[in-house]
Amino acid sequence: MREEVTAFVPGHITGFFSAHPDDDPTKAGSRGAGLTLTDGVEVTVTPADEPQIVLDGEPAAIEPVETVLETLEAPARVEAETSVPIGAGFGVSGAAALGTALATNLVYDRKLSYNELVTIAHGADVQAGTGLGDVVAQASGGIPIRLEPGAPGHNLLDGIPARARVEYVSFGQLSTADIITGDTDQLSAAGKEALSLVVKEPTLLSFMYASRRFAREAELLTADVKKAIQDVAAVDGQASMAMLGNTVFALGTGLSDAGYEPSICATHPAGAMLK
Amino acid sequence: MREEVTAFVPGHITGFFSAHPDDDPTKAGSRGAGLTLTDGVEVTVTPADEPQIVLDGEPAAIEPVETVLETLEAPARVEAETSVPIGAGFGVSGAAALGTALATNLVYDRKLSYNELVTIAHGADVQAGTGLGDVVAQASGGIPIRLEPGAPGHNLLDGIPARARVEYVSFGQLSTADIITGDTDQLSAAGKEALSLVVKEPTLLSFMYASRRFAREAELLTADVKKAIQDVAAVDGQASMAMLGNTVFALGTGLSDAGYEPSICATHPAGAMLK
Repeated sequence: MREEVTAFVPGHITGFFSAHPDDDPTKAGSRGAGLTLTDGVEVTVTPADEPQIVLDGEPAAIEPVETVLETLEAPARVEAETSVPIGAGFGVSGAAALGTALATNLVYDRKLSYNELVTIAHGADVQAGTGLGDVVAQASGGIPIRLEPGAPGHNLLDGIPARARVEYVSFGQLSTADIITGDTDQLSAAGKEALSLVVKEPTLLSFMYASRRFAREAELLTADVKKAIQDVAAVDGQASMAMLGNTVFALGTGLSDAGYEPSICATHPAGAMLK
Repeated sequence: MREEVTAFVPGHITGFFSAHPDDDPTKAGSRGAGLTLTDGVEVTVTPADEPQIVLDGEPAAIEPVETVLETLEAPARVEAETSVPIGAGFGVSGAAALGTALATNLVYDRKLSYNELVTIAHGADVQAGTGLGDVVAQASGGIPIRLEPGAPGHNLLDGIPARARVEYVSFGQLSTADIITGDTDQLSAAGKEALSLVVKEPTLLSFMYASRRFAREAELLTADVKKAIQDVAAVDGQASMAMLGNTVFALGTGLSDAGYEPSICATHPAGAMLK
């Protein structure tokens, strides 16, 4: 047993998606596309007598992390530090679950493969209702396009071959669970249309265009985000809404140019990684 | 059209493999496992009037790179700088092809997806007889396990969730083409057995054990490599042979401990990436 293992998992902003529920959590998930970020969640796992979860220095209950520890039969202490806001559309729950899976596997010598660990974290995130596609995107890195939903073996991923500076501003929390467990027909129709645009032209510009169109058609825009997108457009920038969070994100210097004071990061070239 | 784009592609050491020829180069490939490396190939593409390839400052003919440029209808200038030895089992040809595909796509605004670019580079490497699985491994990063052969959409990848310091020493060149176009029955039988070991236990130790066993059973060991593996084992280290090259690699400080003066790098957490 190793004393301590740390993993970094990139944050993930979804630009658009369609929900694909399934009784089997390894088949459930979403289609869509998003940006993985150099800002994310660092997870450190140490052996313990019973499971303990600490988020940014405070004891926390993160259901998908608890599920991962149960699945791996590991009563570990999990310390997560996040550089992205919580409950704001960055996939913190999925990142914490995936980082916990990767680090716990080494600490407790569980000898599982990368795909097996991603599957466990994805299933835990789906079952908790905290995410539908963040984990597989965060495992892949870059700018993933989720062509088929579910865990590895079921899903099919592609990507937009590009890198970008990313700016974001969060205006507060939105509950993912409320939206992805509600009526998702209109949302999923808009998500499928957005996906077909990006598959036809897998570029950053078409991703931003498809994301804005999705946010409008799925009627998910909050007032703050709507105004920020308009402000960025007014200075010829590209912005859209992080799904699902009360968060606006922009490429390049879009938000700075529009007079906001955004957090600044970049797309993350790699998926989740051990330190 | 952009003026200049640079991509980095990790080197890839295959520990063991089985060959899977197919008339369709997107289906042809190999099963096996290997290490992607922080040492690799940096490829810079600029627009030109006719294709030009420069490798480490000298004009060079790299068939898979030529094929990629033809496929993308791009008469580009390609400058490749490699930090791994050429013709020694590091997948330089595949790395050059993949880096060319990623960078040329942006320079010439070809709007292809990541998987499409990987498919083009994989097919070019297979057709030239210079590699069977390097490109898909280099596109993935980490410590990829190639469960099913071929380009994205056909293949299935998993990974060993670990990181390691890697040391290597090259004793000269071996021709991949001579071996992978010859009789590969014995080699492929040994490769399948090695893969089943690593699937059962996806850890670094089992990867090194399976790789050594494969090198012995496929009767590919050169005298220099055989001696180096024995020297590393004598100091309780783990070493094996890079397939296919006259190169020995070790985890941690195996070769240093045995008195060699190796090149030192690490496993690369990401796949090929734009700079």
